[in-house]
Amino acid sequence: MSKRQIRVGMIGYKFMGKAHSHAYRDVPFFFDGGGVPAMQAICGRDEAGVKAAARKFGWASYETDWRKLIERDDIDLIDIGAPNNAHAEIAISAARAGKHILCEKPLAMSVEEARRMLEAVNEAGVVHMICHNYRFVPAIQYAKKLIDAGKLGGIYHIRANYLQDWIIDPNFPLVWRLKKEVCGSGALGDLAAHSIDLARYLVGEFKEVNGMLETFVKERPIGEMSGGLSASATGTGGALGTVDVDDASIFMARFESGAVGVFEATRFAGGNRNGNRFEINGTKGSIRWDMEQMNTLHYYSADDEAGQQGFRAINCQEEVHPFAGAYWPPAHIIGYEHTFINLFAELMDGIANGINPAPNFEDGLRNQMVLEAVQRSAEAGRWVSVTEVG
Amino acid sequence: MSKRQIRVGMIGYKFMGKAHSHAYRDVPFFFDGGGVPAMQAICGRDEAGVKAAARKFGWASYETDWRKLIERDDIDLIDIGAPNNAHAEIAISAARAGKHILCEKPLAMSVEEARRMLEAVNEAGVVHMICHNYRFVPAIQYAKKLIDAGKLGGIYHIRANYLQDWIIDPNFPLVWRLKKEVCGSGALGDLAAHSIDLARYLVGEFKEVNGMLETFVKERPIGEMSGGLSASATGTGGALGTVDVDDASIFMARFESGAVGVFEATRFAGGNRNGNRFEINGTKGSIRWDMEQMNTLHYYSADDEAGQQGFRAINCQEEVHPFAGAYWPPAHIIGYEHTFINLFAELMDGIANGINPAPNFEDGLRNQMVLEAVQRSAEAGRWVSVTEVG
Amino acid sequence: MSKRQIRVGMIGYKFMGKAHSHAYRDVPFFFDGGGVPAMQAICGRDEAGVKAAARKFGWASYETDWRKLIERDDIDLIDIGAPNNAHAEIAISAARAGKHILCEKPLAMSVEEARRMLEAVNEAGVVHMICHNYRFVPAIQYAKKLIDAGKLGGIYHIRANYLQDWIIDPNFPLVWRLKKEVCGSGALGDLAAHSIDLARYLVGEFKEVNGMLETFVKERPIGEMSGGLSASATGTGGALGTVDVDDASIFMARFESGAVGVFEATRFAGGNRNGNRFEINGTKGSIRWDMEQMNTLHYYSADDEAGQQGFRAINCQEEVHPFAGAYWPPAHIIGYEHTFINLFAELMDGIANGINPAPNFEDGLRNQMVLEAVQRSAEAGRWVSVTEVG
Amino acid sequence: MSKRQIRVGMIGYKFMGKAHSHAYRDVPFFFDGGGVPAMQAICGRDEAGVKAAARKFGWASYETDWRKLIERDDIDLIDIGAPNNAHAEIAISAARAGKHILCEKPLAMSVEEARRMLEAVNEAGVVHMICHNYRFVPAIQYAKKLIDAGKLGGIYHIRANYLQDWIIDPNFPLVWRLKKEVCGSGALGDLAAHSIDLARYLVGEFKEVNGMLETFVKERPIGEMSGGLSASATGTGGALGTVDVDDASIFMARFESGAVGVFEATRFAGGNRNGNRFEINGTKGSIRWDMEQMNTLHYYSADDEAGQQGFRAINCQEEVHPFAGAYWPPAHIIGYEHTFINLFAELMDGIANGINPAPNFEDGLRNQMVLEAVQRSAEAGRWVSVTEVG
Repeated sequence: MSKRQIRVGMIGYKFMGKAHSHAYRDVPFFFDGGGVPAMQAICGRDEAGVKAAARKFGWASYETDWRKLIERDDIDLIDIGAPNNAHAEIAISAARAGKHILCEKPLAMSVEEARRMLEAVNEAGVVHMICHNYRFVPAIQYAKKLIDAGKLGGIYHIRANYLQDWIIDPNFPLVWRLKKEVCGSGALGDLAAHSIDLARYLVGEFKEVNGMLETFVKERPIGEMSGGLSASATGTGGALGTVDVDDASIFMARFESGAVGVFEATRFAGGNRNGNRFEINGTKGSIRWDMEQMNTLHYYSADDEAGQQGFRAINCQEEVHPFAGAYWPPAHIIGYEHTFINLFAELMDGIANGINPAPNFEDGLRNQMVLEAVQRSAEAGRWVSVTEVG
Repeated sequence: MSKRQIRVGMIGYKFMGKAHSHAYRDVPFFFDGGGVPAMQAICGRDEAGVKAAARKFGWASYETDWRKLIERDDIDLIDIGAPNNAHAEIAISAARAGKHILCEKPLAMSVEEARRMLEAVNEAGVVHMICHNYRFVPAIQYAKKLIDAGKLGGIYHIRANYLQDWIIDPNFPLVWRLKKEVCGSGALGDLAAHSIDLARYLVGEFKEVNGMLETFVKERPIGEMSGGLSASATGTGGALGTVDVDDASIFMARFESGAVGVFEATRFAGGNRNGNRFEINGTKGSIRWDMEQMNTLHYYSADDEAGQQGFRAINCQEEVHPFAGAYWPPAHIIGYEHTFINLFAELMDGIANGINPAPNFEDGLRNQMVLEAVQRSAEAGRWVSVTEVG
Repeated sequence: MSKRQIRVGMIGYKFMGKAHSHAYRDVPFFFDGGGVPAMQAICGRDEAGVKAAARKFGWASYETDWRKLIERDDIDLIDIGAPNNAHAEIAISAARAGKHILCEKPLAMSVEEARRMLEAVNEAGVVHMICHNYRFVPAIQYAKKLIDAGKLGGIYHIRANYLQDWIIDPNFPLVWRLKKEVCGSGALGDLAAHSIDLARYLVGEFKEVNGMLETFVKERPIGEMSGGLSASATGTGGALGTVDVDDASIFMARFESGAVGVFEATRFAGGNRNGNRFEINGTKGSIRWDMEQMNTLHYYSADDEAGQQGFRAINCQEEVHPFAGAYWPPAHIIGYEHTFINLFAELMDGIANGINPAPNFEDGLRNQMVLEAVQRSAEAGRWVSVTEVG
Repeated sequence: MSKRQIRVGMIGYKFMGKAHSHAYRDVPFFFDGGGVPAMQAICGRDEAGVKAAARKFGWASYETDWRKLIERDDIDLIDIGAPNNAHAEIAISAARAGKHILCEKPLAMSVEEARRMLEAVNEAGVVHMICHNYRFVPAIQYAKKLIDAGKLGGIYHIRANYLQDWIIDPNFPLVWRLKKEVCGSGALGDLAAHSIDLARYLVGEFKEVNGMLETFVKERPIGEMSGGLSASATGTGGALGTVDVDDASIFMARFESGAVGVFEATRFAGGNRNGNRFEINGTKGSIRWDMEQMNTLHYYSADDEAGQQGFRAINCQEEVHPFAGAYWPPAHIIGYEHTFINLFAELMDGIANGINPAPNFEDGLRNQMVLEAVQRSAEAGRWVSVTEVG
């Protein structure tokens, strides 16, 4: 079979730019699907920065204006890693230009934006995905298989939290991730959005939520950091700016199925560098997972013989586990970057074969509806149904 | 020093009756405090049952009417292990009779009852405690010391859950713990009450809560079980009765200090036999704890050198840890029953020395206020302040 | 059924004296077997000490000469917690006096002594046990059931270590546990003896061993400690004495069945307060256990479906697990002291019903043969068969 | 700074061929050192296989005869992933041809071979490394820093095991890893060699060893597998061949420093897919590590305040940890393949800057001496000093 080349233009060259670039390089090494990415152009506003990134990450060219990137006819796929407030305009333009689209999460600044984005890709008939990479951990994919096979039975509970600690220091500067006009929200859109996606994937659709948002440190030194989540960034001096996003968000949820859930996302949980965790309980079994030990799925089966019941620590790096066979022998573990490689393999396959993979803009919209419902409920101090914000 | 004998009359002879009886026997073996319990009388309505329990557990006599027990002048302390709906009447009568009182949790069926109970013991000037035994795990006592010493700094977060799974089977019978008229609530008063106590002990007073209650299995076979939490009880046949308490309760909280919290209690979390867990995050450190590995306190210090930071697994069975020195050499672990022994040692000391130890009826009332605020918020679908229910 | 009273005389009143006393008190509380201990007399050389212990631990009388204790006709069972070098003489005398015997481990100072002890109890026809308490952890008893049911298949491997750290400080004094004339050996007889017993119980008889012994700190301040394993004991000043026992012992083993094993015991493994651990691998499954989390048995079954294989963390505090039903509801964990209570319940039953329970002096002898084979192999630097030392 | 291109020719295209190819691709993406690999040619005997691998892995050309590869003057570095019995001839030829060399472990079939290899590279003055990749886990590199900084003090103990389970099934075929003429040994050279390297790196040089080898399944179906460690390979039918390497090897060790060690490597430890673990104890602290959770280093410090002592779970994916800064934000974990990337970055730097990095052929020789001493001790049933085999 001759493989189809998918020519990529990517916007953004820092943390996500690096993660995406690496994934494009690695997809054809590990996967034999029908689509192979060609790294055509990387795009960023700072010419020196984007030029260096192009060389370092292996892009054939660079652009400093995303509009030019979209206009290029040697590009099939636009990969949007720009800040959240730029997603909608870029995505809609790209769709109109007939480009397939991969967009970082959260999809948009609002449900209204997300809806317009979804309409645009649907009208254009292009392939679209949202980069909820954690779905593509083999342990998560395998959890989905267990649930679909009925191993957990009907689901009663999900409890999920995503805990980080990189801004506990009140002198950590007011970076773009702490500005509402750029991000829309703080821990909610950055972290809880991942938990919401995992919940939608594994438990089903949300019905209503009731949440709270909290900003512990309300002013911070004005400054920037280089793009990562490092705690080493420093403010530029005396000037303080207002933090107008949430440091922490907590919400309760009811699902369409009758399951209940509780969610927490925070950047103030000391000792939790990247603690993305959940547990799901059903009538017949339970699962637990923690991103910091991402290869392991803990699975409890009520069908196990009495006396022998307990959570099994399954290392999901075996051929039988989804995506795992592409890599290394059993328990020769993979890491964070492989979640992108797996997702990108799915995307390449989708484009090559004309299939629209999940999670896509539909998922992005539904996720945004939950995020917005949480924000509204936090403001109103009451339950808000997800359809209410739609 | 000659020790004072504290003559005990105990009401209830099943699960808590066994745990309390054992603790009375063990206190003088392990502790050298000023008070020594004398197991005078055990009380229960079923004569055959209470008589057998008296022999088995080592009580000198038995009663079948708690009023008679209270009238006896050879009793100094009344220990109330009767169902929740009997706490108030017994406690108030006992206080009026000048007896010291230990009462199982939750203290009462309502804030109003709890308040009357507190007034009664205060008027009588007797010593009173509520049996929140988990406070007395050495790891918890040590956590308190760390917090009081400022090791965690100001507290941002507590997330606590208490997960069990003993009634997942819909054929499990409608035991007394599932009846509102007897218990007041389900998982909330039975399990979350423990988490609330730990939160009050370690984080401080609750300001307001916003919660939800859920009953997954709304009808169950009518039947009884022998008193434990065993999954082996069976219904008596076809007749079904209504479950009118919560199977699960979830709530968000704001504390007086500005900390935020999230709590969950459920009896439907498969694989969690007795999963009483929490994590607390502060400006300078964090702690984690899990009752199923109760001897271990996980402690993270942001003061540790960069590169060497991580949660320490501290086995709190060392002489330096509170209460631990009474038992065995380092890491020769203790278990569930020792939480009672420690609490009872504190109580015996309190009575002998005329000190009122914590947690007491004041704590019971404040706990009840949180429980009631959660119930009201669940009904109203909004935040309820704790003072609002007082 | 009327229960038979077993009248006990116990020698030793420090760490083991406390553990045994407590177990006698608790056996009838938790177990309903045919024998009930009567705590007749405790025996120790220091009158003030033993008198205080008698009062504290609940013994009816005391003796300062073990010969007198044995002569008393109100004693049925002699419990030997004296130092190792006194075991043989006391046990043989007690047997000749027709007393049942419980002896602390290791049984003796030599195989020759152990053999004479076994002969004595056999001739006398008394019930005898050796206090290998770790066998009586419910998780261990359940592991035995799994193995006997063929769940592990044929066994290939055992790797066991018992790691402590209480004498790492070179200024820790030269206590009796570090003197060869009193103990026979150091970590070997104190710690490895436990691992050997667990291996014999779960894997079978040893065939040959090849080991090494090491003394890291060869001189220590002369001094004593109060009886525990506390690191707080201090030497008496400048005088140093020679440590003539092993600080650490390591050995390889072949079993009669063809299984192989590797064992390590040390008092110099910092951070391991009481790390008694092992893993066993068979053709069909594996188990892991750690005394510091003693309620949990980790069990791997190769029969689990592909993709779902992993070690299960089984909390063995459920009614289905041996001895566990005597205590608390599921996962309300028990601790170190319960290993003694369970063993003592077995002993009381044995005496009441004329059955000789295991582990007994036969087990003690076989254990001693392994210990002595390890010592000889360490001296000779080669493999030594267990029968060779017999 | 202009970077030097290092032109690579690699022999072998299966498991290690894949791992190495990937590392060459990723080095320049993550690292900014002075050397950049150019993937010139891959070499294997089967033309169809090697041709496909060249395309898949990104090599510019291929060869089917390693001698031709070595003769090519467009190659700077020969990477030897051929079976063990080919290492010596290839390496010596490559050295004579003036090529830098990276060789898979174990270095050779014998100490004599290893010595000749070392002489050859020394005479040629080329850069040489042995691919002990586990040294390059950030947690291991950080452990080395802790030890070098004196955080563990003097070292008493190392206990290491490397447990796998891929050949437990007696019907698993007689693959090349089970043939002595190809590999020299079984679990010993394949797995224990890694533990020996980690021990040499962290504890120091071995003085003497005393070991045992065991082959549990002595005959297996003749057959092959595709190169990985998968349990899915199957024999070709009735014919059986003899397994002449060890399924398991265990040995005790004394180090030059006075430390003692115990090691075990096996392919028969069910449930351990790739369990490469160790613990090291010193006068002042201890560390634990497990490859299946490779990002976490457990560190115990006796300098921690009394009461707060316990193993810290340090996630070594932070900028402060060696090599970790090249990748992702804190606790966004890396995996098995990154051990190769890190090692290869070191190698590229070494060649570019004329430095000979470790581990190199000197390390390979010393490792081989330990392996051979273990084999001899197993045959002789006694201690063998490492210098004795040199």
